[in-house]
Order: sequence, then structure tokens, then C-alpha cells
Amino acid sequence: MARRHLILDCDPGVDDALAILLALASPELALEAVTCVAGNVDLDRTSANARRVLDLAGRGDVPVHAGCARPLMRRVGVDAAWVHGDDGLGGIALPPPAGPLADGHAVDIIIETARRLPAGTLTLCPIGPLTNIALAIVKAPDIVERLAGIVLMGGAAFNPGNVTPAAEFNIYVDPHAAHIVFEAGAPLVMHGLDVTHKAPATAARRQTLGALPAPIGPALIRMLGGYGTGDPFVHDACAVAWLLAPELFETVEARVEVECASPLNLGQTVARVKPRHLDGASVNAKVAIGIDDDGFFALLTERLARLAAGIAS
Amino acid sequence: MARRHLILDCDPGVDDALAILLALASPELALEAVTCVAGNVDLDRTSANARRVLDLAGRGDVPVHAGCARPLMRRVGVDAAWVHGDDGLGGIALPPPAGPLADGHAVDIIIETARRLPAGTLTLCPIGPLTNIALAIVKAPDIVERLAGIVLMGGAAFNPGNVTPAAEFNIYVDPHAAHIVFEAGAPLVMHGLDVTHKAPATAARRQTLGALPAPIGPALIRMLGGYGTGDPFVHDACAVAWLLAPELFETVEARVEVECASPLNLGQTVARVKPRHLDGASVNAKVAIGIDDDGFFALLTERLARLAAGIAS
Amino acid sequence: MARRHLILDCDPGVDDALAILLALASPELALEAVTCVAGNVDLDRTSANARRVLDLAGRGDVPVHAGCARPLMRRVGVDAAWVHGDDGLGGIALPPPAGPLADGHAVDIIIETARRLPAGTLTLCPIGPLTNIALAIVKAPDIVERLAGIVLMGGAAFNPGNVTPAAEFNIYVDPHAAHIVFEAGAPLVMHGLDVTHKAPATAARRQTLGALPAPIGPALIRMLGGYGTGDPFVHDACAVAWLLAPELFETVEARVEVECASPLNLGQTVARVKPRHLDGASVNAKVAIGIDDDGFFALLTERLARLAAGIAS
Amino acid sequence: MARRHLILDCDPGVDDALAILLALASPELALEAVTCVAGNVDLDRTSANARRVLDLAGRGDVPVHAGCARPLMRRVGVDAAWVHGDDGLGGIALPPPAGPLADGHAVDIIIETARRLPAGTLTLCPIGPLTNIALAIVKAPDIVERLAGIVLMGGAAFNPGNVTPAAEFNIYVDPHAAHIVFEAGAPLVMHGLDVTHKAPATAARRQTLGALPAPIGPALIRMLGGYGTGDPFVHDACAVAWLLAPELFETVEARVEVECASPLNLGQTVARVKPRHLDGASVNAKVAIGIDDDGFFALLTERLARLAAGIAS
Repeated sequence: MARRHLILDCDPGVDDALAILLALASPELALEAVTCVAGNVDLDRTSANARRVLDLAGRGDVPVHAGCARPLMRRVGVDAAWVHGDDGLGGIALPPPAGPLADGHAVDIIIETARRLPAGTLTLCPIGPLTNIALAIVKAPDIVERLAGIVLMGGAAFNPGNVTPAAEFNIYVDPHAAHIVFEAGAPLVMHGLDVTHKAPATAARRQTLGALPAPIGPALIRMLGGYGTGDPFVHDACAVAWLLAPELFETVEARVEVECASPLNLGQTVARVKPRHLDGASVNAKVAIGIDDDGFFALLTERLARLAAGIAS
Repeated sequence: MARRHLILDCDPGVDDALAILLALASPELALEAVTCVAGNVDLDRTSANARRVLDLAGRGDVPVHAGCARPLMRRVGVDAAWVHGDDGLGGIALPPPAGPLADGHAVDIIIETARRLPAGTLTLCPIGPLTNIALAIVKAPDIVERLAGIVLMGGAAFNPGNVTPAAEFNIYVDPHAAHIVFEAGAPLVMHGLDVTHKAPATAARRQTLGALPAPIGPALIRMLGGYGTGDPFVHDACAVAWLLAPELFETVEARVEVECASPLNLGQTVARVKPRHLDGASVNAKVAIGIDDDGFFALLTERLARLAAGIAS
Repeated sequence: MARRHLILDCDPGVDDALAILLALASPELALEAVTCVAGNVDLDRTSANARRVLDLAGRGDVPVHAGCARPLMRRVGVDAAWVHGDDGLGGIALPPPAGPLADGHAVDIIIETARRLPAGTLTLCPIGPLTNIALAIVKAPDIVERLAGIVLMGGAAFNPGNVTPAAEFNIYVDPHAAHIVFEAGAPLVMHGLDVTHKAPATAARRQTLGALPAPIGPALIRMLGGYGTGDPFVHDACAVAWLLAPELFETVEARVEVECASPLNLGQTVARVKPRHLDGASVNAKVAIGIDDDGFFALLTERLARLAAGIAS
Repeated sequence: MARRHLILDCDPGVDDALAILLALASPELALEAVTCVAGNVDLDRTSANARRVLDLAGRGDVPVHAGCARPLMRRVGVDAAWVHGDDGLGGIALPPPAGPLADGHAVDIIIETARRLPAGTLTLCPIGPLTNIALAIVKAPDIVERLAGIVLMGGAAFNPGNVTPAAEFNIYVDPHAAHIVFEAGAPLVMHGLDVTHKAPATAARRQTLGALPAPIGPALIRMLGGYGTGDPFVHDACAVAWLLAPELFETVEARVEVECASPLNLGQTVARVKPRHLDGASVNAKVAIGIDDDGFFALLTERLARLAAGIAS
């Protein structure tokens, strides 16, 4: 089986942690690097958290590269510490990272990996604000056609947003970067609130995940316990799941445009789907709109169980 | 029973026709005037259609006043003849209006009626673009506090739009007028696609309406047959139904703002409902989000049956 | 000599007062009405001040009509009391108006006058925010082609603004109204800061005006003394002077567009003049860019002297 | 004498060529690198032209690094080949570059140089679109406080623009990059059309420059002959001249903001200078508004003569 080369670009974040673990647990994926960006919490925390999660899975060998500490245009910081806890991992108190950050700025690692691997084999999976990806594209536009695609978590095409009525967090934090990524021309799949809100981590699902062997199960139960309110959403894991089992998702083809001009709708991902709305414009994204949520959690549980078993053994 | 004084400001339009008939059929409502605006079709057609529909109901005595032939800021015409037919009434070929337009510009009739009636007794029910209402408010700001309220059809707070992914037709045609009306400070109820799309005129419902005595039943069956595609929506009738039976509707209190700056989202009605999104801003509208659709069609049928019987007798 | 029919739409304002006096002093002009709008000060004050100035000139017979008390879209009031004094006339303490306001809303008077006079004979001279003119155009689009033209004071095409670096006061107060007026299609001449700032009322010029017979001279000296700082600008009088002696002005043909979308540049009047900038767009205004300032003050002085002599006699 | 460390970030361009030559001719300046960006012509041409100009001056040892081939957000290319000739150097047909591009992306060279040199000693002199500088700031925000400052050519604070009535070319090509740079917090001096248009290269001045010894003089005469129309402006050389003789310039302190939202004014550099306009906002730039143009050309001629003499010897 040819493994899919992957860079996870993230801002852990509880749901980022699940996405990382799911990627590590999946033999179909060759995780080339984890690159970090400011988002849910600041860059120091996200790049430490990524290493903490890799350590938890016994995979401190995967290089973690720090990227951009700020969005392109916006100065006033927006974060989601109120959702993910001050530490960004639900207050779980994982040990400090065992190893250092890898050399090389995330933007350069993305560029170099895209150039190093055979054309068409690297998938970028951005699950935080798109600053790193946008900078890589502007700095080295040649990488776009070398990518297998970009499978991202972000946006809300048909659902209301979560930060504002119009905008989802990842896009809202750096709408200009999102604009660059959506307009770049790479094959793109968008997992936004349209789909992630249809797969809540219910109490039963949290219990199942929490029952996995230590240290994974207990860590999951603590992370999810300190994350969001009610039945939390594991947004980022959806994007990784699509890489493993796209049949779990329903998608539509759309022209997605990012609102960068209006304060009222800043960061909204407007999707034109109907021929009348497309009006001749070309499609630039598949937008996930439906999910087999039981199938998704079954996949997640099965994979994380395999990971937990491997660590315990 | 104290009757509610009403001005219907409309752009007939098939669903406007139903709204007019529903108002005429309802003894709770004293229809002071029908005022017309360019929208679904041009002003000449909407102001003729309003009279045609009143004639159909034997109520040529209700004065029809023509208003604004163009929106405030936009020059390029947008209409919905493709939905309502070239004549705006589904190609139904009703006879020409029996009587002339009433004297007085719609804007002035709105102002004069608000000033003439006791304070707090006139309800404006705009079911087309909001140009007439906005001009009345800017020309005579004193009328705002004399209104019982504004109960309008327009917008899409949580649903996608119908003209663009972001915007509903009535607001899209004149977003600046909508801004003026939403910011005016009058008690305001918004019936947008959030609710009107939940009450389609299914085949069974159309059949029931069509079975009413002539001339109402046959006219309805022809109008609805030439209107939209699939099971059409009778948007405008929802706003009038709310005046009669608000218990059929679920509403939320919101701060609604109209996008006037961004071409991408022009005419979007962004609604802030959650305390976190309101962030201290004051509520300016009740937004209808749920409807007892069977109850609504029962009301509509019962009232139009009464009207039809009255005409037939 | 055929006199030019004129409506002065104003917000007195010291420079409005000079414009009114200049119009009254000029036999070429038939001043049909003075219409008032909120601007430099609120509508109550502007419509009282207009009558005060007419009374000063012994012309209480000219009807003064109140118009719009607020701009179209903006709610937060902007005024220029800090320039014109709290009373709007430099604290001059003219007697209260001798007569009442005339019946009829300014918007309707503009419409009725345009319809009543022979087509092509009425000139509108708006020297305040353009709310009244815009409402008249939207309410009755037929008047546009009946106008001889619109000769306005407002904007800054090549000069910086005075309220913000981008915007001149009259346009800034109601940019949406300005957009409507500039896009209406009537022949339009714009006198903005590009020209009014080239004709300051220097001490010598103020002295000359102040030396005119009572009551005009002393009123002028007091008004100009309480107006602005340094050598004040008599903006509005420029627009009236153009009606009398266009040869005093240099103009360019331009496509003028009003910024309504961006907070940063709200109310800017962007003028495209060069063929490369016009890029096929049609011209919609003559923009005054040069003035024979000595000739202008000579005209102003000569006319006001005639007016003062007529009153004194 | 402590020399000022300098990176020239440019898009040659005829006036860029003069700026490079002026920098090379000035012993006060240590030109660390020339970095190139797409602008007047595409990146391949600008990065070849920079080397051609260095070769012309016998300074092929100065490293030239290619940077960004596209602006941040805009996809549709804007260039100024119609001003600078298809080759970007007025059709001068200099020989191909003798040496290759230096290793390292311009963005990284800027970052590395800022980090390598003692804090506060590196000046960036961007005279093209600001894409490279913006990317460096977003990728490595720590460099901002290590800079001595940014002295740029771009914008038009009080003058009309040259690409549109509102915008100057360098800012218009990448307004979002300009926003990032102006908001970064580094000491910043802006040389825009406000000053560059006050120092035209008149026939007499061109003749003086053209009379310099070969190969400099003849190259200048040919470049300036194929550049612009009428008396061309040597915009970029002004920014370098300020580094040598700031006393030749008059500046004002301003808050400069870049219009990124409105298509009408895209790329405008709005400068607030008056206390009333600043309204408490902090100053972020010195804006050059006056120039001793004779002094400037004397400096330019004296320096280029020294350079020409050095080459000839």
C-alpha cells in the first residue's frame, strides 16, 4: 500500500490532539512533519502541545516545526483558550516536551517537503489558521502544483459560524491567509462546521474513548472533559478521517470565497453551489456537508485503540 | 375587537397576492392601504397587480398607492420575473385593474397614515424591498415612534439566501433601505427564509387551496402553478399570518445587521443571538425561525375559504 | 434676460448665508425656494437660520421649507457647530425668524418645482449634505431629466478632505445620498475643497465685505468673525458664483464616485479624469479645480453691495 | 564613519536602477544585499535587472536574491511595463547578468541579515511592492525590533495616485503587504508621490546625468529616455537620497493606513496628520512632503559621477 505523505499543520488544541493521534494511528499515512501555528493558543503553546501529544503516543521522533506566531493582517489577537483551556489541551497537564523543536520554520518545511517528495504525493492537512500554508504559497508558488491536495478543517459554508454569526474560528483568525489558500488552485477539501457540528462527542462516545488503555484513554477523557461545553466537537479529527475513509462524508463541489472586506462578515466562507449562484465561476473546493457520525467515531475508536495497544505493548 | 390598522407594502408577486388576500380575509385587520414598490417586477406591474388582486377579491375600494420605482443606491435592476412570471402573477392573466391608482405617493401615505391614526396603532407590513419604508423613515423620522411595529418578510438569518448564497431577494434588492429600517428603532418582526422555507406549498396544500370556490380557488391554482419550481414558498403570507396567529411561529430575539459594504455578502441579514455574539449590543428584531406549517396552511385555507364564500355569496 | 430658476438646498451655516445673500443679490437668478437639511447644525437651526438670513436681506417672502433631519444611513450625528458656532451663524444673534416655515417638505417642494417649471429650467444648488436631493431623486426619478442641472458644493477630488483626510464635510455627513446624486445622470458641477480652499476670506477681503452698508456689512463681519479659524473659506458661495460667472472657474470633466464602503475613506469623492483612469467610464460631473479668487471676491462684493444698497434705500 | 547597513528590496525598473547606483556610489552605505520582488515587471526580469545594474557598476559581488513572484492576495497581475519598457529598464539592452542569483530566498535573507547584524543597524529600503518585507515580518516578527528602520518608496498621502486616482503603484500592487509593513511598528519613512513628483528629471537634469563618463552616463541617458513620458520621476532614488541627506527633505509625522477593503480606493495610503484627524491614534510614519529638488539632483549627480569615475579608472 502506498502511504499518503502528510504534513499536519495545527494549533493544538484538544481536537488537534485527536487529529494528531488519529494520524499517528493510521498506517495509510506517512506523517512527514507536524507544523504549528498560532491559533487556539499562542505559538509557544501550540508547538509545545504538539510535541506533548507526540510524546504521549511514543512518537517523539516526528519532527515538530514552529511556524507563524501571528496572522497576516490582523494585529488584535483572537484565541480560543476559553474553549481549549489556558494550556490549549483542556488543562490536562501532560509532561513538558521531551525533545526540542525541529530546526526549520514551518513555512520552509512545507516548501521543502513539497519539493522533495515526488510531485503529487504530499497532502497538507491544515487544522488551524492558514497562515503557514498561505505564506508557503506566496513564498514559493511552485509548490501548489506539487501537492496532492489540501484537506483542511475550517469555515462554515451553510452553517452559522462559531466565533461570530458568520465566521468559524480558524478562518476568522486569518481570513486573508484563507483567501490565499482557497484561491491557490490546489485540490482542496473543506471540513467546516457544516460537518463537524454533526458529529458531537457525546457522553457515550467520550466514555468509549476514555476506556482505551492508558495513557491514551485517560488522557482523552481529561482532554475532552476540559474542552468546550456540552458535547464537544472534535472538528480537526474530521479532516484526518476524510483521508482515511472519505466514504464517511458527503461533499458538494463549490466555489468558496472568503470575506476579507466587511467587518460584519469577516472570515465568512461563502460557498456557491447552485449553477445559478456559480454563474460560470469555477469550483475551487469540495465542501463536506454530511458525515456518518457513528462510522466516524467507530473509525476514531478503532484507530486509537490500535495506537493505545501499540504503546501499551 | 380592536382591529389592527395595517398598511401592506408589497411588490406582487404571487406570494404577495396571497398575503393581500389573507389580509382582506381577516376581520382582525383594517387594511388602510396597499402601497407598492418595485421588486419582483417593476413598479407599473406591481401597482397594477395589487389592484388586480383586490379586484379579484371584490375589494377595489382599498386604495393602492404607487411608491418607489427604484432602490436607493443600486442602479442595475434585479427582479424576480423568472420566479413570478413576466407579469408577476404567474401568467394568470387577471383582468386589468378596474380602478385607477389612488392619489399620493406610497411614502407620503405611510407618513400620513402613521400621523393620522392614534399613536401605536398602525402596523407596517412590508413584503417587498424596503425602499418605501426607508424613505418614509428618513423623510419623517417622527413616524417611527408612532408605529405599533413593522412586521416584514425578508432576509435569511440562519438559512442561506435565495438570490445569492448570502442574501434573500427583498433585502438584496435594496440593502441600504433594509439597513435604515432595521436601525430605525421600531418594534420589528422579521420573517425570512429561516421560516418561509419551512412551509412549502406542497401539491396537497395547493390542491386544497385550489379547491376553494371561484374565482379565488381557480386563481390560486393558476398563480401557484406559474410560480417558482417544485413546491413553491408563500413567503409573504407568513408575515400576515403572524399578525393573526403569532402562536404559529417560534421567534428569537436578535441584533440584525444588513451587509451593505461587501459585494460578496451584499444584502445578508446577519443575526446575533447568543449573548457571546451580542456582546452588549441591543436587540432590534424578533426573527421567526420556526413555524407550525400545518397550522399555517390551515389558517390560510380557512381564511381564504371565508373570503371566497363572501365573494360567491 | 431669462432668469435661471433656482432652489438653494442648504444648512446655514455661515458660508450658506453668504450663498443665500449672493443669490438674492443676483437678478439673473429666480430663487424659487430655500430648502433646508440637517448638516452644519440640526434641521431646526438650519431652517431657522435660512429665514433669519432672508429676513436680514428683507426677503422674508422667499419660502423656506424644512427637509430631512437625518442622513440616509448614518445614525451618529456629525455636525460642524465647532466651525459655524452653536447657532450655525457664528454666534451672530440675528433676530428670530419673522415668519413661519412654508408648508411642504423640502423633498416634495423640489419634486413639485421640477415638475411645475418648464423642463430644463430648474437648477438645484445643494450646498449642504445631499439627503434632500437624493430622496427627491429616489422618490420621483422623473425629475432628473427635467433639471437644468445640479451645481453643488461638496467633496474634495484632488485635495485632502476637511473632516477626515479623505472626506469633505457635506459628503461625509451623507455619503450614500451623495452617491445617489452623482449617479443620477443630471448635468452636475461639483465645487469642492479643490476650489473653495483657493479662495480664502482674507482679512482684507473680510474688511471690504464688512464695510458694506448696514445691516449687511456688520452682519458679515460678525458672521465671518465667528466662523472657522484663520482666513475662513466661503465654500458655498462658490457654487452660486459659478451660476453667475462660470468664467471665474476652471473645471475638468470627471467620473466622480463616492466611497460608501470603506470606513477609512468614507465619503471620499474619487475623481477619474485621465483617459487611463477613466478606462471607458462615462463622465458624470464637471469638477471645479481653479478659481479667479480676486474676481470671485469682486463679484461677491459688488453683488452684496447692490443688495445692501437696495435694503438701505 | 559607521556605515549604515542596507538591504535594497526592489523591482528594477528604471528608477530602481538609479537607486541601486546611488547606493553603490555612497560610502555611507554598506549594501548587504539586493533583494527582488515582482512589481514593475515580473520576478525573473527584476532579479536579472538588478544584477545587470550591479554589473554595469562593476559590483557583481553584491548578492542578488529573488523573492516573491506574486503579491499576497491579488491574483490579477498589475505591472508597469508600459512605464519602464518590456524589459523593465527602458529597453536599454544591458548585457545578461554575468553571475547567478545568490542562494536564499529574499524573505529569508532579510530575516537572517536582521538577525546577524547588531540590533538597530540594518535599514530596509523597499522601493517596490512590499511583499518580501511583509512576509519577512509575518514569518519572523522578532526582526521588527532589530531594524534601524524602513525607508520606503511608495504611496501618495496628499497627492493623487498614479495607477488609480487614489493609489500609487507599489502600494496598489500589494496593499495587504503594505498594511502589514505600516502596522509593524518599525521606524518608517515614506517617500511617496507627495515628494517624488516634486523632483522631475527635466531635460537639463537628464543631460547632466547623461554626460557622466561611460558606461554610466550613456546607460542613464538610454534608460531615462525609455522611461515614462515627459519629464520622468526618479521615485526610488529619493528614498536612498534620504539615507544620505535627510536635510534635503521635509517630512511630517502621520498615522498612515492602507486601504485594503474598498475596490474604489484600493491601495490608498491615507495619512492623518492634524491632531483633529489623529484623534489619539499613534503616529507610525514620517511622510516626506517636500524636497530640495536641486539639492537632490546635485547629490545624485555628484555621487554617480564618483561612481562613474571609479569604474573608468
